[in-house]
Amino acid sequence: VVVPLPEKALIAKLRRLVSSSRGGKRSPLGAILTGIGDDCAVLNLAKGQDLLVTTDFSLEGIHFRRDWHPPDSVGHRCLARGLSDIAAMGGTPIAVFLSLALPHDLEQSWVNRFFSGLLSLTRKHNVRLAGGDIAESLKGVLGDIVVVGSVPHGKAVLRSGSNPGDKIYVSGELGGSAAAVRKMRAQKRGTKVHVRDYARHFFPEPRVELGQILRETRLTTAMIDTSDGFSTDLAHICEESGVGAEIDSSLIPRARVGKPSREVDLDFSLHGGEDYELLFTAPSAKRIPGRLAGVRITQIGRITRGHGIFVRNAKGPASELHPRGWEHFRS
Amino acid sequence: VVVPLPEKALIAKLRRLVSSSRGGKRSPLGAILTGIGDDCAVLNLAKGQDLLVTTDFSLEGIHFRRDWHPPDSVGHRCLARGLSDIAAMGGTPIAVFLSLALPHDLEQSWVNRFFSGLLSLTRKHNVRLAGGDIAESLKGVLGDIVVVGSVPHGKAVLRSGSNPGDKIYVSGELGGSAAAVRKMRAQKRGTKVHVRDYARHFFPEPRVELGQILRETRLTTAMIDTSDGFSTDLAHICEESGVGAEIDSSLIPRARVGKPSREVDLDFSLHGGEDYELLFTAPSAKRIPGRLAGVRITQIGRITRGHGIFVRNAKGPASELHPRGWEHFRS
Repeated sequence: VVVPLPEKALIAKLRRLVSSSRGGKRSPLGAILTGIGDDCAVLNLAKGQDLLVTTDFSLEGIHFRRDWHPPDSVGHRCLARGLSDIAAMGGTPIAVFLSLALPHDLEQSWVNRFFSGLLSLTRKHNVRLAGGDIAESLKGVLGDIVVVGSVPHGKAVLRSGSNPGDKIYVSGELGGSAAAVRKMRAQKRGTKVHVRDYARHFFPEPRVELGQILRETRLTTAMIDTSDGFSTDLAHICEESGVGAEIDSSLIPRARVGKPSREVDLDFSLHGGEDYELLFTAPSAKRIPGRLAGVRITQIGRITRGHGIFVRNAKGPASELHPRGWEHFRS
Repeated sequence: VVVPLPEKALIAKLRRLVSSSRGGKRSPLGAILTGIGDDCAVLNLAKGQDLLVTTDFSLEGIHFRRDWHPPDSVGHRCLARGLSDIAAMGGTPIAVFLSLALPHDLEQSWVNRFFSGLLSLTRKHNVRLAGGDIAESLKGVLGDIVVVGSVPHGKAVLRSGSNPGDKIYVSGELGGSAAAVRKMRAQKRGTKVHVRDYARHFFPEPRVELGQILRETRLTTAMIDTSDGFSTDLAHICEESGVGAEIDSSLIPRARVGKPSREVDLDFSLHGGEDYELLFTAPSAKRIPGRLAGVRITQIGRITRGHGIFVRNAKGPASELHPRGWEHFRS
């Protein structure tokens, strides 16, 4: 009895891909001593560093759809989810582990393009694919990415450090990813949404460098990435810090998408997930530049004593903002 | 739009389970500084230690079946796979991360019992569930376990260190897990295979302590766990070490299973997977005790110059042993 999936061929392929991704300069923060081809990967962490570990699913039908997302976008987004979590702690990614289950009838070309998207992001962030697992899936492509990173001991930026009076900031623009999903939902079967018109959805850039800079300034009291949607992610910070928040809706930086490009609706920027921007707080007396690591930084509100997130706008009284879950791509 | 899966409830549950598993004594090799409830887990590794990372899928229909495996067995086996990889490097497990996708109609009691099985094994090995991901699955229960461990710098036992002349050893008995699978395949719908008659299948004991002792002796030149089946796992050692092997089939320790118990067929002990024993090599001049960490150790052959694995028995000439893939539970 042999597994229908060409496991050996795939592992051989993984190895080739991995060795070809060894070109980048070695990270000063940690070295991979043994990678794919043993029971575990062996890593050596530099002195004085804490270890960061994050895991994220990328499941077909839940986090992506094969009829919507090109395979290189699926691979890129799979890894971007993990890198963004490292960014949200102010850390540096070191090694990546991919568990990947594939239906037996999946074309090899899809797998090749998936890896091409994933590995091109590893090279950009100087991080190595160091291991993982391969299996057959009875339904759909199932990915689980693990990113291991490092941060100077005791310096990880948590969600729990916000204080009343802190200003709330967000990087980049919000709502662009959710707008792409709406567009794809509305499209006729067979037509394609142009990847370049919705780049933030198909090829999101995890804010790793920005996260490190924010950690180094020591001004950032709490940080999270906007993966679940702004309202949900801000609620996480409030919950973990035991505080409330007040937001000015006119200040929310809304993404521009499509062609010709237009600004997304406020609701998308408030609740749409998977923008992978950084949402963080800093003491009000400190000045945060309007641009860091090439990314726009916008102050959008402040942390309050007490509970709940309230949104105010020019027109009327503040209303409570309830976090809405982000449903990804379930049809 | 809200995810049908009670994600928040589950995360709250994960947290409760995690905090209740904090009772065990803290590992001297590493401490978990921040666990579930932030973007990453933050770990601090003791000085002079290398980091071990392994990931393993547990997918319904591939690695287990809900009509065959009680939920606590599924949870136990999910973690045992990862712990066994740490054991095979001679390492000490520190932290566990679980990515778990559940069908929306799965009963909460199944999830509770799954965690009960998984967490009781974490306590046994003094390791903490430190994070993971929760998602909805469109089909079946999908688990991916990550185990992070440590080993003194440069001392991990790899697959690649076997030399011609080394003796080959295996811990415990082989074939017991595969025999359980055959029994379940043959059974009528509705009848149950008794868990206690096939304990090594339903509740395998990863050989963590044994692996550490073997590493500490410095006698072990290469090691792997028998997860894919003896023939496949020995082939991995031979391939990574660039050597061949010769096995005496009469020496293979065959498991006794069922009630009344009987010895499994030779084929099961040669090719059946998921026994999670340790297969290792050591120089022929060194003496390895017949029992270590309470587990029987059997010498079954030796490493040869050249290629291929050959099996000899009392009756006739040696025949080549071809590795056979292990298909798990696909029906």
